[in-house]
Amino acid sequence: MTVTQPRTAEALLTALSRDLPGDALITGPEATAPYAADRSGSRPDGEPLAVVRAANAEQVRTTLRHAHALRVPVVPRGAGTGLSGGANAGTGTVVLDLSRMNRILDLDPHDQIAVVEPGVITAELDRAAGEFGLRYAPDPASAAISTVGGNIATNAGGLRCAKYGVTRDAVLGLDVVLADGTPIRTGRRTVKGVTGYDLTALLTGSEGTLAVITAATLRLRPVPERTATVAAYFDTFAEGAEAVSALTAARLEPSMAELLDGPVLGAVDDAQGTDLRSRGGALLLVQCDGQAAATEAERAVRLLRGRATSVETTDDPAEADRLLTARRLALPALERLGRVLIEDIAVPRSHLAAAVREITAAAERHDVRIFTLAHAADGNLHPILVLDPGTPGIPDAAWQAAGDIFTAALRLGGTLTGEHGVGTLKRRWLADELGPEQHALQHRIKAAFDPHHILNPGKAL
Amino acid sequence: MTVTQPRTAEALLTALSRDLPGDALITGPEATAPYAADRSGSRPDGEPLAVVRAANAEQVRTTLRHAHALRVPVVPRGAGTGLSGGANAGTGTVVLDLSRMNRILDLDPHDQIAVVEPGVITAELDRAAGEFGLRYAPDPASAAISTVGGNIATNAGGLRCAKYGVTRDAVLGLDVVLADGTPIRTGRRTVKGVTGYDLTALLTGSEGTLAVITAATLRLRPVPERTATVAAYFDTFAEGAEAVSALTAARLEPSMAELLDGPVLGAVDDAQGTDLRSRGGALLLVQCDGQAAATEAERAVRLLRGRATSVETTDDPAEADRLLTARRLALPALERLGRVLIEDIAVPRSHLAAAVREITAAAERHDVRIFTLAHAADGNLHPILVLDPGTPGIPDAAWQAAGDIFTAALRLGGTLTGEHGVGTLKRRWLADELGPEQHALQHRIKAAFDPHHILNPGKAL
Repeated sequence: MTVTQPRTAEALLTALSRDLPGDALITGPEATAPYAADRSGSRPDGEPLAVVRAANAEQVRTTLRHAHALRVPVVPRGAGTGLSGGANAGTGTVVLDLSRMNRILDLDPHDQIAVVEPGVITAELDRAAGEFGLRYAPDPASAAISTVGGNIATNAGGLRCAKYGVTRDAVLGLDVVLADGTPIRTGRRTVKGVTGYDLTALLTGSEGTLAVITAATLRLRPVPERTATVAAYFDTFAEGAEAVSALTAARLEPSMAELLDGPVLGAVDDAQGTDLRSRGGALLLVQCDGQAAATEAERAVRLLRGRATSVETTDDPAEADRLLTARRLALPALERLGRVLIEDIAVPRSHLAAAVREITAAAERHDVRIFTLAHAADGNLHPILVLDPGTPGIPDAAWQAAGDIFTAALRLGGTLTGEHGVGTLKRRWLADELGPEQHALQHRIKAAFDPHHILNPGKAL
Repeated sequence: MTVTQPRTAEALLTALSRDLPGDALITGPEATAPYAADRSGSRPDGEPLAVVRAANAEQVRTTLRHAHALRVPVVPRGAGTGLSGGANAGTGTVVLDLSRMNRILDLDPHDQIAVVEPGVITAELDRAAGEFGLRYAPDPASAAISTVGGNIATNAGGLRCAKYGVTRDAVLGLDVVLADGTPIRTGRRTVKGVTGYDLTALLTGSEGTLAVITAATLRLRPVPERTATVAAYFDTFAEGAEAVSALTAARLEPSMAELLDGPVLGAVDDAQGTDLRSRGGALLLVQCDGQAAATEAERAVRLLRGRATSVETTDDPAEADRLLTARRLALPALERLGRVLIEDIAVPRSHLAAAVREITAAAERHDVRIFTLAHAADGNLHPILVLDPGTPGIPDAAWQAAGDIFTAALRLGGTLTGEHGVGTLKRRWLADELGPEQHALQHRIKAAFDPHHILNPGKAL
């Protein structure tokens, strides 16, 4: 990480206060402290030098131009809801807060396209699209609080990925500003196009290290006319995982398949006074959508009956919401128990049960409490470490358990992070997944965008 | 383009003949001439210096290592079915032919993944997947003759893109060899994953300019259990285009919507003795698939009835094949009329009719015969210029008509190439679409992969 010298800091603040409106610039440790960390549970050393609350692309350009000239690190930030430290901003950095750039610039129901600023809350876009019978298909669990720009920066997944893909699959084009303040427009308004390298895809998931997003052209999709929801309880998480495999093997393509382990159900019971844990050691929630939703759900029920201890189904939205409540309340319930550290491995779908066995073994080996939920149709697991709230930082045992889990994910042919990003927390394992040659190549690509390493240094790579 | 000096050429041939098996190396202008061009209708100056018919990744590495050390340009090649000159290989180049690397290495019906060598014919993979009730969703019109590696190099589209996406959406990971012979593995076997920059997506569509693909990990999808096909005739192409817009506006998501203009129908009639042109000035072929295929096709028929001169529908595969025959026979029918130059613009879906008006105007302005078919649900049009077979090269009038069409596509918010790639033929318009700053950035990315510009120089960028 670059160290910003006092004279450089002063020169930057002078330039920014001269060239930005007064309400755009925040300075002083107390005022900037709320911008120092994301929701990962980790904190950098110190507070940012300054926060620029940009109102438009021109202010983004101004900020980057000055920071680039003075070699001051810039940390782009949406709503700060990231879970891997990607928006953490320590001493000597400038936070470029994009949450004020929150306009939907265009919503074209004919071409099924939206053009939005990066600070638009994901659920707001979905709601606006809904007025035309459309939706923004990516559905991160954080949709109510996270921004589209942050979703793009991490290539966020969510609950509907198995059928509808991840954020990348919905991004057609980007307006970005490069490290030196140069604006470029990647991609297009068409659903297909192959002119030049696919910088739209490269920027998606680059965690603010290659450029700063100032607008995104997004693909919308029709809202399915019908949805059917199935809830099934199993004795063990492994049996639930195998049931999901059976659905896949039967060529069903549910739009959602969420699996919660017994300890998560117990935590929800404790928080909500419900009685889920007594019904089974794992809960599987399956949703089918489209014209044939009911037929597909019936097929799912037939397949699950032989394996589950109980199965219930509904095509009533309110009843479906009730069934999904356990999933929605899982994280708040765990947050009552301690400080949570949310991991995010993905494995080939057939290895879901094996991955859970590895997670359980790691928890026992290092005496760490780990609760697990999974986007099961994707093979994406969230082992959630619950830490003692009194202990500052991340204890060694937690790092070791996480390390064992990552190593197991890679051994099973999987990945360190399915949808949250590398940020700062997973960097120590990055080279294990990429290999030294690809890691070096990725650094050369970074340098092609940002030769002086001012954009979110120390993250992602 | 680098000029290869005679002594350099000799040194390379000496090294390759020493380090490769005898049957892998082809030299001499007569033997290498068949590898000089793709199916774009353009030809480079001269013949390649040598052709390496690689049997495995090790031979790819050997070839690149020597070519890199001696700075000799290398042109990767699959089946040579490209339409934009991307695999053209002139004097002083080495063709790296990957068509012998044609094994399906793994086909995992459980994880719905295939791992293949780049020379596998696309339709062969689809057939192999079909034995497990799966398919390789991208469906380029060339599937019977093109390779998976070539499809990835161009990010090929096809007939099912509107619903199932393009090649990029099916590629999970790649084994590639960098310009200097270094092997790397990008991506993973999981359906989600965000560790590091998305080099899999960056390499897809890079037209052999960044690395050479030696294996691909691909996502398979269940074969839809039902399919229904609708054929509708219209008085004009514009009315057909508006009918497709009406389907989209009604939130239908057909898996295919192919639109053929009157002159194409006339050419098919002349070739096949059919009687299509008398039935209308445009033919629209719509396919719906999935459990609800019949319901969706019925809705499509209701919407089309008021607009079309006639509508017919079927859920019988043989009858559907009969309806699709006109589409399949279009290109061979046009090839009987002269030398064809196939263009490939895409526009926002609502501008399809406007794009066709521009194409017609360009044809009249420059007195060039242009026939048009479209993947209408994608806004992807193929204006096909039919040239006098007696005239060598591409006449000025054809370049001018193509230029007018590209300019119109960009003005309508579209792109130069929806699915075929830039190759050599569209490079002169590339900067118009990318802008100078993005163009320069793409060159810096190229240099991060291939600092000495040996991989397919003079293409794509």
